[in-house]
Amino acid sequence: MREALAEDFGLGGDLTSEATIAAGASGYGALVAREAGTLAGLDAALFAFRVLDPEATFEVFRRDGDLLEAGTRIAVIAARARALLGAERTALNLLCHLSGIASATARLVAAAAGRCAISETRKTLPGLRALQKYAVRAGGGRNHRMRLDDAILIKDNHIALAGGIAAALAGARARAGHLIAIEIEVDTLAQLDEVLEHVAGVDAILLDNFSLGDLREAVRRVDGRVPLEASGRISAASVAAIADTGVDLISSGALTHSAPALDIGLDIAS
Amino acid sequence: MREALAEDFGLGGDLTSEATIAAGASGYGALVAREAGTLAGLDAALFAFRVLDPEATFEVFRRDGDLLEAGTRIAVIAARARALLGAERTALNLLCHLSGIASATARLVAAAAGRCAISETRKTLPGLRALQKYAVRAGGGRNHRMRLDDAILIKDNHIALAGGIAAALAGARARAGHLIAIEIEVDTLAQLDEVLEHVAGVDAILLDNFSLGDLREAVRRVDGRVPLEASGRISAASVAAIADTGVDLISSGALTHSAPALDIGLDIAS
Amino acid sequence: MREALAEDFGLGGDLTSEATIAAGASGYGALVAREAGTLAGLDAALFAFRVLDPEATFEVFRRDGDLLEAGTRIAVIAARARALLGAERTALNLLCHLSGIASATARLVAAAAGRCAISETRKTLPGLRALQKYAVRAGGGRNHRMRLDDAILIKDNHIALAGGIAAALAGARARAGHLIAIEIEVDTLAQLDEVLEHVAGVDAILLDNFSLGDLREAVRRVDGRVPLEASGRISAASVAAIADTGVDLISSGALTHSAPALDIGLDIAS
Amino acid sequence: MREALAEDFGLGGDLTSEATIAAGASGYGALVAREAGTLAGLDAALFAFRVLDPEATFEVFRRDGDLLEAGTRIAVIAARARALLGAERTALNLLCHLSGIASATARLVAAAAGRCAISETRKTLPGLRALQKYAVRAGGGRNHRMRLDDAILIKDNHIALAGGIAAALAGARARAGHLIAIEIEVDTLAQLDEVLEHVAGVDAILLDNFSLGDLREAVRRVDGRVPLEASGRISAASVAAIADTGVDLISSGALTHSAPALDIGLDIAS
Amino acid sequence: MREALAEDFGLGGDLTSEATIAAGASGYGALVAREAGTLAGLDAALFAFRVLDPEATFEVFRRDGDLLEAGTRIAVIAARARALLGAERTALNLLCHLSGIASATARLVAAAAGRCAISETRKTLPGLRALQKYAVRAGGGRNHRMRLDDAILIKDNHIALAGGIAAALAGARARAGHLIAIEIEVDTLAQLDEVLEHVAGVDAILLDNFSLGDLREAVRRVDGRVPLEASGRISAASVAAIADTGVDLISSGALTHSAPALDIGLDIAS
Amino acid sequence: MREALAEDFGLGGDLTSEATIAAGASGYGALVAREAGTLAGLDAALFAFRVLDPEATFEVFRRDGDLLEAGTRIAVIAARARALLGAERTALNLLCHLSGIASATARLVAAAAGRCAISETRKTLPGLRALQKYAVRAGGGRNHRMRLDDAILIKDNHIALAGGIAAALAGARARAGHLIAIEIEVDTLAQLDEVLEHVAGVDAILLDNFSLGDLREAVRRVDGRVPLEASGRISAASVAAIADTGVDLISSGALTHSAPALDIGLDIAS
Repeated sequence: MREALAEDFGLGGDLTSEATIAAGASGYGALVAREAGTLAGLDAALFAFRVLDPEATFEVFRRDGDLLEAGTRIAVIAARARALLGAERTALNLLCHLSGIASATARLVAAAAGRCAISETRKTLPGLRALQKYAVRAGGGRNHRMRLDDAILIKDNHIALAGGIAAALAGARARAGHLIAIEIEVDTLAQLDEVLEHVAGVDAILLDNFSLGDLREAVRRVDGRVPLEASGRISAASVAAIADTGVDLISSGALTHSAPALDIGLDIAS
Repeated sequence: MREALAEDFGLGGDLTSEATIAAGASGYGALVAREAGTLAGLDAALFAFRVLDPEATFEVFRRDGDLLEAGTRIAVIAARARALLGAERTALNLLCHLSGIASATARLVAAAAGRCAISETRKTLPGLRALQKYAVRAGGGRNHRMRLDDAILIKDNHIALAGGIAAALAGARARAGHLIAIEIEVDTLAQLDEVLEHVAGVDAILLDNFSLGDLREAVRRVDGRVPLEASGRISAASVAAIADTGVDLISSGALTHSAPALDIGLDIAS
Repeated sequence: MREALAEDFGLGGDLTSEATIAAGASGYGALVAREAGTLAGLDAALFAFRVLDPEATFEVFRRDGDLLEAGTRIAVIAARARALLGAERTALNLLCHLSGIASATARLVAAAAGRCAISETRKTLPGLRALQKYAVRAGGGRNHRMRLDDAILIKDNHIALAGGIAAALAGARARAGHLIAIEIEVDTLAQLDEVLEHVAGVDAILLDNFSLGDLREAVRRVDGRVPLEASGRISAASVAAIADTGVDLISSGALTHSAPALDIGLDIAS
Repeated sequence: MREALAEDFGLGGDLTSEATIAAGASGYGALVAREAGTLAGLDAALFAFRVLDPEATFEVFRRDGDLLEAGTRIAVIAARARALLGAERTALNLLCHLSGIASATARLVAAAAGRCAISETRKTLPGLRALQKYAVRAGGGRNHRMRLDDAILIKDNHIALAGGIAAALAGARARAGHLIAIEIEVDTLAQLDEVLEHVAGVDAILLDNFSLGDLREAVRRVDGRVPLEASGRISAASVAAIADTGVDLISSGALTHSAPALDIGLDIAS
Repeated sequence: MREALAEDFGLGGDLTSEATIAAGASGYGALVAREAGTLAGLDAALFAFRVLDPEATFEVFRRDGDLLEAGTRIAVIAARARALLGAERTALNLLCHLSGIASATARLVAAAAGRCAISETRKTLPGLRALQKYAVRAGGGRNHRMRLDDAILIKDNHIALAGGIAAALAGARARAGHLIAIEIEVDTLAQLDEVLEHVAGVDAILLDNFSLGDLREAVRRVDGRVPLEASGRISAASVAAIADTGVDLISSGALTHSAPALDIGLDIAS
Repeated sequence: MREALAEDFGLGGDLTSEATIAAGASGYGALVAREAGTLAGLDAALFAFRVLDPEATFEVFRRDGDLLEAGTRIAVIAARARALLGAERTALNLLCHLSGIASATARLVAAAAGRCAISETRKTLPGLRALQKYAVRAGGGRNHRMRLDDAILIKDNHIALAGGIAAALAGARARAGHLIAIEIEVDTLAQLDEVLEHVAGVDAILLDNFSLGDLREAVRRVDGRVPLEASGRISAASVAAIADTGVDLISSGALTHSAPALDIGLDIAS
């Protein structure tokens, strides 16, 4: 948050608050949801006010992961008035973004109704991955891999460049330490069959853009030997049907790259 | 991009590519639009490949600000295959996000049809403000203020804490250097009238959440003395009607906080 | 200040204080002006002692912007003796530099006697711009633009490369957002006349190295339509006469690039 | 220089050059001395242009340490016009500051006429110490200690807190490694005598604010056993007389904290 | 390497080389092993010379992972003489440290003779983990987890605080995403039996400080259901016997925290 | 420590502790020596727990430089249980490393029995020099130079490139400021004689890889005119004999590049 505040304050600081608010004036700000959703990022948001006013105090009514209705009061901040207005935008920018991700995740989790898990992907924004993935957890999702170095995920291009599924899996097993999981993406049932021939040491299979029928057939063929992940054009509308096919996990890049911000505002009183 | 790549590579690097692709193998990757939109962020995206392979070369067919159709080839990268796959996600994450912003901006610009300008706000993501505001320009928008220190924008809370419009404007004029513009937000026509009584030195007035009728009336009352900005619940559907009222500028926070990513992919061939 | 202290302490720390002062010894240090001037940078200077001794306490008698006489006690610091001596030079380096700038500014402000404002330029030192511009404000000056991105200032080279004053101003208006001010520099009365032909949207005119007579004539021709800034070889001796011409602002690069440090010392007692 | 350029460009970049100069235009810039002095910092200044235009080329006529006359052409830069204007201020800010220090040093060195060395102190600006001390060398000076950790310099407060000269020197000898020099400051001839009683292991003695007569007497009493440094109110006018007393070194804080910038400009041609 | 060179050069640079070597002099430096071992870190070491002399060229005879004899020439660097001597220590510090780790690893790998894998732990030095773990791979080892966030490793304290093995494993399964492996440490055969009752979802078991007899018994009881790792007081002398017990992996913290540097020198010729 | 913790926590944090320990649980951790040695780095180690739990409290029984027996309790930490386990490895990694250096130093200091000083070299690890050199002091050693810029140490290659001992010393005297010590390395008694011919201004002579007989002879020839340092293949076994030769200082690179970690553990109780 310190860097985000510096990005907003520049070299000259908050000219408007300096020009219009007495240095010593104090006030209250209430974080209030303007629409329904799921909260994420509250601690970071509150910290922005603390940075500008080390003596700011907080009364907190909701926690990350809590459901919000339009009008829900999330927290009240008592601080110097200049700090309230100076940190407002920086705090809300992060809070609304992360709550937007949590809300989108919670919608998919609700649609899946416990039949399968919901996960994001590595389609995150530069510098924000840890926070965005945290917001997915706040929304009830489970995290996919964090980076390129904590699991092996073999995609179509890797298969092509390795010279086929068998060769790619052999390479993966040779490189992976004993705590590195291996997942492989397949685009067709035929590819799935080929993976199943070399399934030892495979920790998950990603079924990319499969039809519902093919997903069901894949579940049947795998028969519980290895977890199955479905991806590709996931939406709140399609999740229930996909979950019904019996896959273990549905992953959606849109959770982090296209979730609209949740509208949360700061009501200020002196 | 270096930091974004470090965030993705962690301490161990791209395990999958190391495991499946020979170190010396080279390949080609084509950046291809999967849907229609406006391009932004190409140089940064290409730079990601250059970081991983200093000898990567590029053939570029489209530039930032260009319109893309589904299927448009944007650029082709020749590089080591491990660099293509290692940088793919980081490059696309930024490119799709910025192009999403440019595309959303271009849609509002098209709807305004030249009758007024389109601008974003300070509702940006931490660390990404410069890039997001650049994307707005790539989409044909004009930038609002960059930070808290390059212009004064007096909002409702500032007015309340200053003790009224006249006091707030007086404070602003006393603080602003000769190159600092002053804008003031009003919520009602009555407030507008009060501002007009002290309009000397005011560079713009922000009409927040005005109805179309009130916008028209505001335009009539101001009569060209100072530029007018409309904000609040802006969408592609509402922009044309707002532009018709005669305001000079429409600003939309959603351009940067809620624009969905534009779908651009990397087709790899060896 | 943390980085400045690290620059001074290096890898081994303050050898002299470790060698000569008991670890637990405490003491007092009084910041005392050795010559008359204007104070700036006190909070940062005091913070240096706090970094080395988190339990340091301060009694403060003067604030930034206050006038100092030779002998004025500015503040008293109670801290561990090693912290007093270890932070002394770092604290004074910044305090004397910023107070030097504030003092030089205050001299010009006094000479202008309220007839016009005094401003610095972008002739600042790397990494110190925010602090140096703050010191100008502490001395009663008003800030010129902070950076290249918060206002447009068209100079002779821009005019030449743009193909003339009209073209340069047209380019500026096309690029500037609604909160970006536009200033243009002219070297002669003839150029001033050309600017006045295209004066709509020009927020200020910089008269560079004009004689007193030409400044008066420029004020007459502009007749209040746009603020006028005078620059070039500004000194305490010349400011009064320039202010008499009727310009609105005098800017001086020497305020930040050549102001001598104000002599402030630390008197230590155990 | 990268950080200094970032400080100047902010989030939006050089608006004026973007608005007035075609992206592809190229030009020439000549660094020209506007007054006589000594050059320092040329490589860093030229690097600023290279950062903005990696294909910038330089023709260099003068090197750091060279004497400049008013009108001397120092170097010519061929680069894109936007890069010339965008880097101009950042490059000149550093070049003029460092050349100002080198010029002030060279004046003292000339006044000393080889009878003693000239040195700066630790009175430098935050973040600029290495460059400022380099500029002193470029002006013909010799560096005093770089930081608190590379030599021991016992001042009056250290003596007081250690409990006297003998105790302070004993502490210093116990703490110093075999490559750490020890210098001690004295304010009176009586203190000097006390130091001479414990002079083993003392590498230099600093005579602070001694009169010319006392300096001569100190030289006589020390009789070459240890180098002597004179400090306090040093100016170009006083250096010759001080050098005549026979001290080995004169140190001046003003070299780095109060040297006026040397006026060097950039003449641009397309 | 840039930061490591900055740490060594400080503010004043390599005084000795400046004092004794002409600025333009060039030379050759040969990296030569002074004792037998395994190479790691060559690219980083060579890069240090490139930083000081961008035109340095390299002839490389050995690669990371290669065995070295006393006297083996690893590479020859042609560069400016000041760059050779200025970068020598920084380059060798890293090269000797990483080659020391690779050599220690290679000794254990050789002792294991392919019967089991060799791995390091998280007992690395601050800031050097990625490089130290890379050196283990260069020595033929396989990496254990990189950080706390890429796998779950339940130790005795976690078991105690969770309320037992069953509760700890249940918590782990609930928290882990589908690509997060779970390992659990046991200290006794009785604990092993308890783990085996809840072995579903356990990816590895760590047998800490087991006797050879207990290791053999553990291997018998687990019977290939899950990989087994042995740790605790591992040395080149004990590895063969431990490998004979049938465990899959031996991990040693000493590889990274106590491996002596490999003696590699730089022979310089002009 | 913040960076070291970030290196260990990555983007996802301490998964294991989150999975197995209640967020609010608190506990105690005792730092206990598992073998005899000398303590160094306690404050930094304790700070790691404070970073994760700002309310952590410490009871400290031993200080840096204290001797430890196997079983000695060093300190007890009361903190949240997740903080104890999350910071454990990072804290111990540094503490065991620095205590290992202090212990190795203390062994050499004991062997020298006060007849000469013990020093490390510049053979340190990237980013850790200040801490490693501090640990040498904690073990009773005296620091050699910190960096390349705080003393001149002329080695064989410098002599060769300068054109001989006389030329190298002349260059050093010309470059060194009055507080920069000059040391020169010799490999033979003949070289020593040549140095003695130009010994004015030489602060120390380094006798590299001299036999015991040659060391004695060197001590005889120098006869106290300048301090002598012995280096090359130093071990606890050889120090006593070398100290007996009468040299003033023995330096050992192995103190920092090859000292094994001291085994210190954290015993946790809830």
